[in-house]
Amino acid sequence: MGLSSLLWAIWYILPAYVANGSPVLVGGGRPIDGGRTWRDGKRLLGDGKTWRGFFGGVLFGTLTGLIQYFLTPGFYGSLKIALELAFLLSLGALLGDLIGSFFKRRANLPRGAPAIGLDQLGFLLSALAFAYPVKTLPSGQLLFVLIVTPFIHWGANYFAYRMGWKSVPW
Amino acid sequence: MGLSSLLWAIWYILPAYVANGSPVLVGGGRPIDGGRTWRDGKRLLGDGKTWRGFFGGVLFGTLTGLIQYFLTPGFYGSLKIALELAFLLSLGALLGDLIGSFFKRRANLPRGAPAIGLDQLGFLLSALAFAYPVKTLPSGQLLFVLIVTPFIHWGANYFAYRMGWKSVPW
Repeated sequence: MGLSSLLWAIWYILPAYVANGSPVLVGGGRPIDGGRTWRDGKRLLGDGKTWRGFFGGVLFGTLTGLIQYFLTPGFYGSLKIALELAFLLSLGALLGDLIGSFFKRRANLPRGAPAIGLDQLGFLLSALAFAYPVKTLPSGQLLFVLIVTPFIHWGANYFAYRMGWKSVPW
Repeated sequence: MGLSSLLWAIWYILPAYVANGSPVLVGGGRPIDGGRTWRDGKRLLGDGKTWRGFFGGVLFGTLTGLIQYFLTPGFYGSLKIALELAFLLSLGALLGDLIGSFFKRRANLPRGAPAIGLDQLGFLLSALAFAYPVKTLPSGQLLFVLIVTPFIHWGANYFAYRMGWKSVPW
């Protein structure tokens, strides 16, 4: 694998990153679980997961795909594929994040507490699985994205923390 | 993807599972870090990572590949590839586990504390990356293994806990 195939792998996954990151900026509002609890008496998802964050993330992630198509149409083949891919990557990323929150609440981790690995890879695996039927990456590039994402994730969160957008550096 | 391609994906990764699981049975002895600490004053890896567990894991994982070759020679093509693959999957799994322990100690998690995601996926991504040059899986099967492994991991650890082989159910 050359450098360019590694950059294309990051380009492929970019809508998932945007969808995963944008709730930090556009989030807030009513929690998705509406305050409901699971049978263990703990919150289903917690106050950190809101409808505005979810739909904002899907919207910004899908718009990322629109911009990407106009920059590199050849990578996608058609606008339809670019938008479908970006939508599925974004929806998968945000649903994966919700599933992760569900497991974190069950493990009794408070809102915002880190789960090393789940936080960095849960959204990504879900995004890759949702997008798989439309367009996927060869396995070498897939492994590269999975191994490099935790480090990009930590860097991005530390940056957001230093900018005052997040209250914790993870 | 049919059922058989999913079963082949599990067959492919089996040596990594065996390597990751066998220290529970053959572990103990001198810790790899020899009691040394990192600059944060905490243990480099902790008492849970021992030379015996490491070499035992590589040995049992590689032997798994030997047995696999005699059961399904066509999947590997040659004994050399089967052994190389099993050795790299095992070595990658155990090194990934050590890297995970290093990060867990830096995050101030005590020995044996769970890190949801890292525990289930760190060893696996490392194994897949080490084995990649010898033999890899198509991306659909790769994603399947990555998504199903955390559940297999939880099930196996819960079983080991109920059998009295582990002191904690994760």
